Amino acid sequence: MIPTISVFEHSPDRGQGLARDMSVRWAFEEVGQAYEVRQVSLSAIKQPAHQALHPFGQIPTYEEGDLALFESGAIVLHIAEHHVGLLPADPNGRARAIMWMFAALSTVEPPIVQREIAMYMEHDKTWYEKRLPLLEDGIRVRLHQLSSRLGKADWLEEAFSAGDLMMVQVLRRLKTSSVLGEFPNLCAYITRGEARPAFKRAYDAQLAAFIGKPPKQAN
Amino acid sequence: MIPTISVFEHSPDRGQGLARDMSVRWAFEEVGQAYEVRQVSLSAIKQPAHQALHPFGQIPTYEEGDLALFESGAIVLHIAEHHVGLLPADPNGRARAIMWMFAALSTVEPPIVQREIAMYMEHDKTWYEKRLPLLEDGIRVRLHQLSSRLGKADWLEEAFSAGDLMMVQVLRRLKTSSVLGEFPNLCAYITRGEARPAFKRAYDAQLAAFIGKPPKQAN
Repeated sequence: MIPTISVFEHSPDRGQGLARDMSVRWAFEEVGQAYEVRQVSLSAIKQPAHQALHPFGQIPTYEEGDLALFESGAIVLHIAEHHVGLLPADPNGRARAIMWMFAALSTVEPPIVQREIAMYMEHDKTWYEKRLPLLEDGIRVRLHQLSSRLGKADWLEEAFSAGDLMMVQVLRRLKTSSVLGEFPNLCAYITRGEARPAFKRAYDAQLAAFIGKPPKQAN
Repeated sequence: MIPTISVFEHSPDRGQGLARDMSVRWAFEEVGQAYEVRQVSLSAIKQPAHQALHPFGQIPTYEEGDLALFESGAIVLHIAEHHVGLLPADPNGRARAIMWMFAALSTVEPPIVQREIAMYMEHDKTWYEKRLPLLEDGIRVRLHQLSSRLGKADWLEEAFSAGDLMMVQVLRRLKTSSVLGEFPNLCAYITRGEARPAFKRAYDAQLAAFIGKPPKQAN
């Protein structure tokens, strides 16, 4: 059975692959699982029909038979658990890959999203110019720690995993910030992630959806 | 082998069970797994020895044989996967329980933590009084959505799971905020979580650690 995910009809990121369907599309492509896409408008996302699937009124959702999921982290983990390619076979390596998924979403992403929220919600407030540097300092702390741990390695553990997928996708949100440039090894890490054929297929599919072409499928 | 977790030597929450070891202790108690505790001072947490275990300089860490983990979500999931009691046996129910873990940490917690950061870091800023209501509105949006989904149910799915454990623990951070009182079913949900014998044992253990008694162990 081919799973169906919901994505924005018109993604607010205008096809940059920063919406949360991107990590799910990338995971599907890494494991070679075909998927269907259902586009949801920004108004429909707040309606009962969508909120029955996603109580927080977001995308993506995942539907396969009688299973319905939301939360991109949970969906990527579900995909990773049911296919080969995103989690190491050895139990300890598997636990560490999942650990990095949580680290990406719970520890690295929040200060990055806070900056986005401020840019969107507080850009006209009197305090915006004073607060922005504080927000960037918060991001800098996490990037410094992540950069130190990554060092000269290609990936966070021995091989690319769902943990790298989520971390690269979180870091990509910073591509419009100059903070990222202070950490060359993290820039190279993102570039390695984006160079993966599966990333490129996922990126092209979400871009095609944005510009109105039929979304591409995995493989 | 008995796993060891790291906890604060003097928790900044002064024994209220809001530090991130609490969810791990609670998970251990739910499944009846004994554990050892290693106390780490607020200065040691930033030193290389601890950062080798936890690159982001936080607690808890988890050590068992040659496996070392950080991120409370990942540790709770690891415990839940290796014992009976925190994840349903049926695969779809299991996936939904994990989904709620991610929802707690990625969607519900960030606005709650933002309020804490503002109270800690920005209380002396000129904009603090104007920003606080905005932060509470952000929390209110998520609580309203969660409250609507929970409805009159006891737990987020058919039975208590690791998803409820993480969600209750996230919501407990709001106990000093009046926002929580606007959602009686969420208050009752927290109370149900706190009434579980495993929660009480975990709470007592972290409190004993704070006030200087030897930490209690599971069972």
